[in-house]
Amino acid sequence: MSLPAEFHEIAKRVNNWGRWGQEDEIGTLNLITDEVVKDAAATVRSGRRVALALPLQQDGIQTGMIPGRVNPLHTMVQINQELFGPGTVATSDDAVTMGLQAATHWDALTHVSHSGKIYNGRPAGTITPHTRARYSGIDKAEHIVSRGVLLDVARAKGLDRLPGDHAVTPEDLDEAAAFAGLTVKPGDIVLVRTGQLQVALAGDKHGYGYPSPGLSVRTPEWFHAHDVAAVANDTLTFEIFPPEIENLWLPVHALDLVEMGMLQGQNWNLENLSTACAEARRYAFLLSAMPEPFVGGTGTPVAPVAIL
Amino acid sequence: MSLPAEFHEIAKRVNNWGRWGQEDEIGTLNLITDEVVKDAAATVRSGRRVALALPLQQDGIQTGMIPGRVNPLHTMVQINQELFGPGTVATSDDAVTMGLQAATHWDALTHVSHSGKIYNGRPAGTITPHTRARYSGIDKAEHIVSRGVLLDVARAKGLDRLPGDHAVTPEDLDEAAAFAGLTVKPGDIVLVRTGQLQVALAGDKHGYGYPSPGLSVRTPEWFHAHDVAAVANDTLTFEIFPPEIENLWLPVHALDLVEMGMLQGQNWNLENLSTACAEARRYAFLLSAMPEPFVGGTGTPVAPVAIL
Amino acid sequence: MSLPAEFHEIAKRVNNWGRWGQEDEIGTLNLITDEVVKDAAATVRSGRRVALALPLQQDGIQTGMIPGRVNPLHTMVQINQELFGPGTVATSDDAVTMGLQAATHWDALTHVSHSGKIYNGRPAGTITPHTRARYSGIDKAEHIVSRGVLLDVARAKGLDRLPGDHAVTPEDLDEAAAFAGLTVKPGDIVLVRTGQLQVALAGDKHGYGYPSPGLSVRTPEWFHAHDVAAVANDTLTFEIFPPEIENLWLPVHALDLVEMGMLQGQNWNLENLSTACAEARRYAFLLSAMPEPFVGGTGTPVAPVAIL
Amino acid sequence: MSLPAEFHEIAKRVNNWGRWGQEDEIGTLNLITDEVVKDAAATVRSGRRVALALPLQQDGIQTGMIPGRVNPLHTMVQINQELFGPGTVATSDDAVTMGLQAATHWDALTHVSHSGKIYNGRPAGTITPHTRARYSGIDKAEHIVSRGVLLDVARAKGLDRLPGDHAVTPEDLDEAAAFAGLTVKPGDIVLVRTGQLQVALAGDKHGYGYPSPGLSVRTPEWFHAHDVAAVANDTLTFEIFPPEIENLWLPVHALDLVEMGMLQGQNWNLENLSTACAEARRYAFLLSAMPEPFVGGTGTPVAPVAIL
Repeated sequence: MSLPAEFHEIAKRVNNWGRWGQEDEIGTLNLITDEVVKDAAATVRSGRRVALALPLQQDGIQTGMIPGRVNPLHTMVQINQELFGPGTVATSDDAVTMGLQAATHWDALTHVSHSGKIYNGRPAGTITPHTRARYSGIDKAEHIVSRGVLLDVARAKGLDRLPGDHAVTPEDLDEAAAFAGLTVKPGDIVLVRTGQLQVALAGDKHGYGYPSPGLSVRTPEWFHAHDVAAVANDTLTFEIFPPEIENLWLPVHALDLVEMGMLQGQNWNLENLSTACAEARRYAFLLSAMPEPFVGGTGTPVAPVAIL
Repeated sequence: MSLPAEFHEIAKRVNNWGRWGQEDEIGTLNLITDEVVKDAAATVRSGRRVALALPLQQDGIQTGMIPGRVNPLHTMVQINQELFGPGTVATSDDAVTMGLQAATHWDALTHVSHSGKIYNGRPAGTITPHTRARYSGIDKAEHIVSRGVLLDVARAKGLDRLPGDHAVTPEDLDEAAAFAGLTVKPGDIVLVRTGQLQVALAGDKHGYGYPSPGLSVRTPEWFHAHDVAAVANDTLTFEIFPPEIENLWLPVHALDLVEMGMLQGQNWNLENLSTACAEARRYAFLLSAMPEPFVGGTGTPVAPVAIL
Repeated sequence: MSLPAEFHEIAKRVNNWGRWGQEDEIGTLNLITDEVVKDAAATVRSGRRVALALPLQQDGIQTGMIPGRVNPLHTMVQINQELFGPGTVATSDDAVTMGLQAATHWDALTHVSHSGKIYNGRPAGTITPHTRARYSGIDKAEHIVSRGVLLDVARAKGLDRLPGDHAVTPEDLDEAAAFAGLTVKPGDIVLVRTGQLQVALAGDKHGYGYPSPGLSVRTPEWFHAHDVAAVANDTLTFEIFPPEIENLWLPVHALDLVEMGMLQGQNWNLENLSTACAEARRYAFLLSAMPEPFVGGTGTPVAPVAIL
Repeated sequence: MSLPAEFHEIAKRVNNWGRWGQEDEIGTLNLITDEVVKDAAATVRSGRRVALALPLQQDGIQTGMIPGRVNPLHTMVQINQELFGPGTVATSDDAVTMGLQAATHWDALTHVSHSGKIYNGRPAGTITPHTRARYSGIDKAEHIVSRGVLLDVARAKGLDRLPGDHAVTPEDLDEAAAFAGLTVKPGDIVLVRTGQLQVALAGDKHGYGYPSPGLSVRTPEWFHAHDVAAVANDTLTFEIFPPEIENLWLPVHALDLVEMGMLQGQNWNLENLSTACAEARRYAFLLSAMPEPFVGGTGTPVAPVAIL
């Protein structure tokens, strides 16, 4: 089996290999210049902050269907331990085991490969158990702060959430941008809201993952045309699942991460942000979504915050 | 053994129990109002970002001396796995085990108790293995974004780093604020630079921890007087170690976390920030330092970013 | 709510506190003398070995219903790593995170407490996050080797497996002993086969746990009367689940572990052993079921072997 | 760099590829027949049991020098949790993260490869992050029970322990066998005592690992000639470290595991066994050393027991 011609044609159009040099490891994050961040800070009006991460706990959203992507096992190592003798100040410490992509996370560019390659044409074999990702590990995405824009596709359509078989198209993104009254600019981080996370929040973890609305294979070209820096949404798989084209699995991942070099975020909780933006009638804000710098990580938990 | 009278006198003066109501779980984070954040965003001039977290890796700063505070064991769960058959898009996933306070971190208010109490007078016994911290867990500190100010004590004194027996005093903080040409305001997050992290960065992990400069038992009153929202620095223990007063261990922890209800950060890398502030001749900036929302966590890794 | 009078009456009859002294931490394992082991070795006829542990893997028997009892997350730390340079001998290493009671395991005596006490009348509060079990941790059960006897209750009744609502009674145990043609002796380790593990082996993890046949609240007296050293079976909960007496949860655990001081084993795969014993027409053998010596552990994975 | 001619010559002489068929995954464990085990059981005289595993705890023997081989992080998941309501029977559960080769362990045959091959000529590339070891994983070594013989090299020489630069030779093994008054037979599991573990038990973890006595590159031929089933000893590296021949690292591993297909055990505590054998004046016993069946594991913790 190989990837169909349709995929390769899109791939050619969105490919960014070499655009920022042969040594580049961060792709479209290069579009976030100091100037972009300065302008992003200027979007802050009220100082209201909205946190976008799911709680980290054993009872998380993973169901066991993705091998090894385990919910956080968070345990106490010591509780009120009087380290220096009875009656002294006591400390409590904890530890965790978790899949780096188990909850609200960024995929590193190296999360996906196809045809033996990762972003910028490097061999996929440069990911090893010992080094993890030698190139484009999540630690290379040193700071992710920019203007965030919420494209609230569900709200723009007057829906609570999109149906499970809805592929979010470029036209949907245009519609949501028009609804928001904004223009997506180079260096923006785009948050696409489907409303699907409500299914998980209501307790149906299996229903959350499948079937699920998500991005269409046609959207990478839209992101490329707008020079978007990164994209996140409120679904498990990011792209529509099951996929639009039979037997073409994870094409959006391959186009965004490998061809374009654009980070993706998943399982972001955009519900409160949707309300806040609607109340403020503004859909642009300063977004800080710093990766935990796991050396060679192919993903990372992230606790994003929108500052309106 | 019990805590000395001197401790209890300071405790009375900085105590914030009940100040934000009996139900309060976040202490001085209450001082970060929308207005404070709005003003903080207005401090951004250049858009330059400086990341403050140490890399997360097995070869981290922990030496094994603090039981259970283990360096990140970061392993690949799958590498270039063609989940949907040969020739399809391939994915890589990873997982981690780590102490939540192993690297750059926030202590939750519940990290420390004394005399059987945690912040706001609740029983220390509300921390259990099953619930972890029922009150004031790190997940309650929902968003930590404010004006950050760097009090570069080492640079203000013309030193690369403070000697190992230097207790940073209120006078040192005043001196550094004067050097920075700023006034610390309510809701600020104060970053105190000693330069001690250089020892760890040079490879001497044991020397980093002991002996180490750090905050004096006299500083909590200074933070209280200035209504600071949170404090972080570039040392392992936060306060001077070994302590100033014989057999009075971790008094600053007890005063800051338990009495005042003020979060502390440790192992923050302030080296690049020191350079950036010196170059910009400005020591105030927008700081985003979002906790990972571990439910009931007594600490969290954090990837702070200063936006100048 | 408190435990009913019926429970306390049985408790009195099976209680072994003080029987081996106030300092004792291993309970009925004291019954395994050198003489018992010598005789056990003499039961070996053919040298045939039957392993009784389930495979350890992410796709294990845990369903997430017991908080924190996580299936093994087994990851490679390095693969064919040429540690000493290209062309040298290469090594592979792996690591695991797992609940100690996740698969085939022994409960330590401290796995259960009731009315604030563990075995031998010690306070339950001696189990702490820092020390784990100070007394009667699984590391104290230094060597578990004895005569094993299979009481194949299902086979004795001519059934593949017992129905889900079948409480195994003392009469059932007598029947199985008669079927086996043996007398249970002091120091024996008794393996009780219900056949229930077949449900898990067929892929129905939820059905394996509930409803499940298991030991009746009346069996501890039988074990006590026979001076059995330890008991294991092929179910998730060991005792019948849901329980025989409304709102009396885990009474067999409380009687065996706390009152009698007798170790319990769960999730033992007795299917091949059942066949081997039937073929050999002998139901007694040498059993080695050594605990991994987790210091202060309240349980341990175990890889038991029957030598026929 | 490639392995020297000397290595390849020995390799040819001890190679067992194909000896038990192309499908074989367990190598010299094939030598442990039912007959061998039956005879082994007959060696039991007193019923005395000696456990050979080190305690599993955070303060274990690993020093951080072998990446990812982490000491057990053993944490409580719940303590005296009244799962079914106040006053009910309470349970305690724990979990662990550890390197499978961190303490007393077996190396699986797949722990080592050289020249791109593992045992029986299979490609080293069959070990992957997803499958771990597809062939010869430790789960394939289903039951390891046989006659154990202690070759107490240190005691035979009248030493407490061998010096750090002592390579145990075939002549040393013959000497120890003569001292023990026994002949090593096909299917035996040979335990070689150097006394080196005393260094670790005395608290010097670094000194334990380096320099360390261990097996000479000449011993694999001796094991091959005697048709030994498996070998374990009381050192960190198994073979003498640093090695006898400059730049020839881990040759014994490569010969034993890859060429011969013979399992190796390390960090076995043979101190009590040495005493027990000397007291009994017998150095042969029944040994049970069952691997935990980690699917595709390249090693496993083991809790061996000698039954005298």
